[in-house]
Amino acid sequence: MSKFFSNKFSGLAPYVPGEQPKGAKYIKLNTNESPFPPSPKAVAAGAKALERLMLYPDPECGALCNAAAETFGVRPEQIVCTNGSDEVLSWAFAAFCDGDRPAVFPDVTYGFYPVFAQENGVPYRVVPLKDDLTMDIDALMAAQGTLFIANPNAPTGIALPRNVIEVLLRADPGRMVVVDEAYVDFGGESVVKLIDRYDNLLVTQTFSKSRSMAGARLGLGFAAEPVIRDLNTLRFSVNPYNVNSVTLAAGVGALSDPAYTEANCRTIVENRAFTAAGLAKLGFELTDSKANFVFARCPGVSGEVLYQALKAKGILVRHFAKPARIADYLRITIGSRAQMEALLSALAEILNRPI
Amino acid sequence: MSKFFSNKFSGLAPYVPGEQPKGAKYIKLNTNESPFPPSPKAVAAGAKALERLMLYPDPECGALCNAAAETFGVRPEQIVCTNGSDEVLSWAFAAFCDGDRPAVFPDVTYGFYPVFAQENGVPYRVVPLKDDLTMDIDALMAAQGTLFIANPNAPTGIALPRNVIEVLLRADPGRMVVVDEAYVDFGGESVVKLIDRYDNLLVTQTFSKSRSMAGARLGLGFAAEPVIRDLNTLRFSVNPYNVNSVTLAAGVGALSDPAYTEANCRTIVENRAFTAAGLAKLGFELTDSKANFVFARCPGVSGEVLYQALKAKGILVRHFAKPARIADYLRITIGSRAQMEALLSALAEILNRPI
Repeated sequence: MSKFFSNKFSGLAPYVPGEQPKGAKYIKLNTNESPFPPSPKAVAAGAKALERLMLYPDPECGALCNAAAETFGVRPEQIVCTNGSDEVLSWAFAAFCDGDRPAVFPDVTYGFYPVFAQENGVPYRVVPLKDDLTMDIDALMAAQGTLFIANPNAPTGIALPRNVIEVLLRADPGRMVVVDEAYVDFGGESVVKLIDRYDNLLVTQTFSKSRSMAGARLGLGFAAEPVIRDLNTLRFSVNPYNVNSVTLAAGVGALSDPAYTEANCRTIVENRAFTAAGLAKLGFELTDSKANFVFARCPGVSGEVLYQALKAKGILVRHFAKPARIADYLRITIGSRAQMEALLSALAEILNRPI
Repeated sequence: MSKFFSNKFSGLAPYVPGEQPKGAKYIKLNTNESPFPPSPKAVAAGAKALERLMLYPDPECGALCNAAAETFGVRPEQIVCTNGSDEVLSWAFAAFCDGDRPAVFPDVTYGFYPVFAQENGVPYRVVPLKDDLTMDIDALMAAQGTLFIANPNAPTGIALPRNVIEVLLRADPGRMVVVDEAYVDFGGESVVKLIDRYDNLLVTQTFSKSRSMAGARLGLGFAAEPVIRDLNTLRFSVNPYNVNSVTLAAGVGALSDPAYTEANCRTIVENRAFTAAGLAKLGFELTDSKANFVFARCPGVSGEVLYQALKAKGILVRHFAKPARIADYLRITIGSRAQMEALLSALAEILNRPI
């Protein structure tokens, strides 16, 4: 760090995103991207917006809020639009956590949560998952603070049913519960509509996965109006034009094409079942993933070794060295059928087992 | 605010951007947008990127850093790319200010500086401009802390020559000086190349003005490598994919078309001279603006009244009620010749004076 960098960031450990290889041709199953292009309606709307780039975006994101309100069955005033859902999540750490209300989240979850806490200078408590990698609801309920629940969780893919989230919401109406639904469209149960009943609920979603728009950076936050107003106070204090015009337009385009999104999600779910069956046949153990990835280990085989062997064969998957109990797991994005067949073939070769 | 909003933000006063009218047709001279569309090369590159939106952007922004390094005559490692220059400015407040090093800036300058300081929880000191609205260099040098200098300044448009910035940089090598060059392409002197000589210099620029890409949200920070590494530590702790793929591609496209940018800047400078002469003939007093706007008052006429009268005639300009000594000024964006002729005609009617 330079001599000018404030000491308050001296312990900051930035998030490490999945590799984005340049040059070499990889089958990229490491960052949970969609194998499908964005909807033609999203592309067309974005292209039209490019011609008017000399004007600032609408700071109220009115057209997108209106379209999202219709899609999700809520009111536009219950929505905040952000530069990817990472942005609304980071703001939630800033807005709803402090010395009196630490952030609380599982030990195995989205790796950005502890970084967001550190960057925003708020304390956090980590609640271990149970041995079967499911969430320890009793321990989460017992921990005081603002709760962050990825549902489905990452990298396990395991989903909580809606009624369990409701138990958490009811247990302490004075505690904010943030439900990160980045992966909800692949088999999870969304709680977006619960924002009318619980003023302590913030739900975040992203256009990166089911809508094939990771490159566009578009996230949404859903909550009761006072909570959305708080987030907009931060938004107008950081970057009122946080979402660019092309992304806003492409987002409206994507929302106007639900059939395309649903068909892609169905294909991913089918390919996930195909992949899970193939991995099981190869001797892997898998969690019950409801996301666009599987989380699997091969007993007796090092996760690091498998990751490197796949990389050598031109297939990138995600491997987490820490915490130790998931070090032998691989998180494998569900891509096209051809990509998943290539993955299974490569693993069969590496393990010298029949597919 | 909701009962969940952290008390640390209880005094936060968000920035108020210029009006973005919907519906009614206005001549928009209030947010310093360009009257010209983006370069066709920017549009074409952006359109191509739309097809690949399912993939995350390059978190290293490699192609854009390389293109910008060539354009500005620096090395790619001396550049950070951000979601508009507001983002790099906000991070500079976070990274380089704290209780020991308050932010220091003039009283009349970019209205976001005090908001960035508040949002990041850092103290700030305000140094009044001199009576002629120029910067008080001696007072700025005497103030301890991290200096933020908009050059040209907004909303005055007044520019400091490069050698004065150097005096500030040399006065205290242990103090960071941030030079916000949002408006530099309309007649200011850039200090980007000084980053090789001064490790306490951070220069920020934007694609919003001279490159007609306000809607794309693209800013750049230039500094010595250790300072850029600090900003990247924050970037990877907040949002490693902070700049979307379409904007990155459009930015490279815009940089590949310098002749287009230069021609547009020349036209703006010509239209500024035309507007200034017309306003002077109508009895206005103007600062010596080197930006894509003029800052003018009509002695004896209220700025608020003029602003409202222009709005009633379908022309939006920017009026700042505070501080009191600029309350009678209007900040008027330089648009096309036809727009400026419409402005002068409207003012002549309002004031009942000949053009």
